[in-house]
Amino acid sequence: MSFYAAPIAKLIDELSKLPGVGSKTAQRLAFHILNMPSGEVEQLSGAIISAKRNIKHCRICCNITDSEVCSICGNPKRDEGLICVVEDPKDVVAMERTREYKGMYHVLNGAISPMEGIGPEEIRIKELLKRLGQQEVKEIILATNPNIEGEATAMYISRLIKPMGIKVTRIAHGIPVGGDLEYADEVTLMKAMEGRREV
Amino acid sequence: MSFYAAPIAKLIDELSKLPGVGSKTAQRLAFHILNMPSGEVEQLSGAIISAKRNIKHCRICCNITDSEVCSICGNPKRDEGLICVVEDPKDVVAMERTREYKGMYHVLNGAISPMEGIGPEEIRIKELLKRLGQQEVKEIILATNPNIEGEATAMYISRLIKPMGIKVTRIAHGIPVGGDLEYADEVTLMKAMEGRREV
Repeated sequence: MSFYAAPIAKLIDELSKLPGVGSKTAQRLAFHILNMPSGEVEQLSGAIISAKRNIKHCRICCNITDSEVCSICGNPKRDEGLICVVEDPKDVVAMERTREYKGMYHVLNGAISPMEGIGPEEIRIKELLKRLGQQEVKEIILATNPNIEGEATAMYISRLIKPMGIKVTRIAHGIPVGGDLEYADEVTLMKAMEGRREV
Repeated sequence: MSFYAAPIAKLIDELSKLPGVGSKTAQRLAFHILNMPSGEVEQLSGAIISAKRNIKHCRICCNITDSEVCSICGNPKRDEGLICVVEDPKDVVAMERTREYKGMYHVLNGAISPMEGIGPEEIRIKELLKRLGQQEVKEIILATNPNIEGEATAMYISRLIKPMGIKVTRIAHGIPVGGDLEYADEVTLMKAMEGRREV
């Protein structure tokens, strides 16, 4: 039983469905919303609906976008011969922040995870293969996450693509810049040693 | 510059205005919202607007409600002679959870805080005095928070009301039930000693 009036109880209930938002946080957010100016509340509510309605997947790279083709795929200055395969739209943003990479992306929107029942059909691998049939690609860079699911996904894709005669590379694993050897885990340290390069 | 499409950048921006929501959390929430079923997204968006539009302050006790008079003020079984003064609608809910108190409430919607520029006129003290002129009240229980602002507010109200011949009490301060003397701060312990009762 809730001691709040119905509209506020409903708002607390809806907010507490969000990830990382428990009942105390939902209550705090709800009261904040009640105290916000009406205009700002409408902006927030409208932004939620608008994002859900207007965001779709890019026809080419499967990244999220509000147009048919995303701004990266639609940019003629980017190198079409290079495709960086990532799990998530957030990974594209992380990569773009480096301002170094000038190729294209392919967003899988997930990773193969038998534990969660996600097989190769559930993620956008088919779309990647279709792209490779339609355009000249020199190199596929596998930038899935360095965990079990990401490694399995990278392995699966490389086995599919290598026989097509396309160069397939995997991003380097190692000690993060600014990191400390002392706090690195064994696997990372081992990968860093394996990947050592002549200076 | 944002690397996201406009609707999602806007949503992240709006979410990050909420208290305790930084840019990383806003991003995580925004992607969660994109992956929610459309029906649920509309429920969330609608609940935000509806709470803001339909919630107002009770004409009598200034608690938040969706009707003219809140469910507590409108309940004929509650004792009209007893008013518990709290800072916040959340405090009413906390008090109601005890299922012991059967009197009325008065919600100040804040506390006197010279540091934040909140004077007695900014909170609902006038409305409390108006109530006292209109109905027979035997006792005012001051249940503002046991911090500087809450104490100052309690002190201010008691000085206004005592001359009217109404009994004014303050909730007890002491060691919380299940708490440990060892971890109690000096002020709480001092208050607990001061408030000791014969057994």
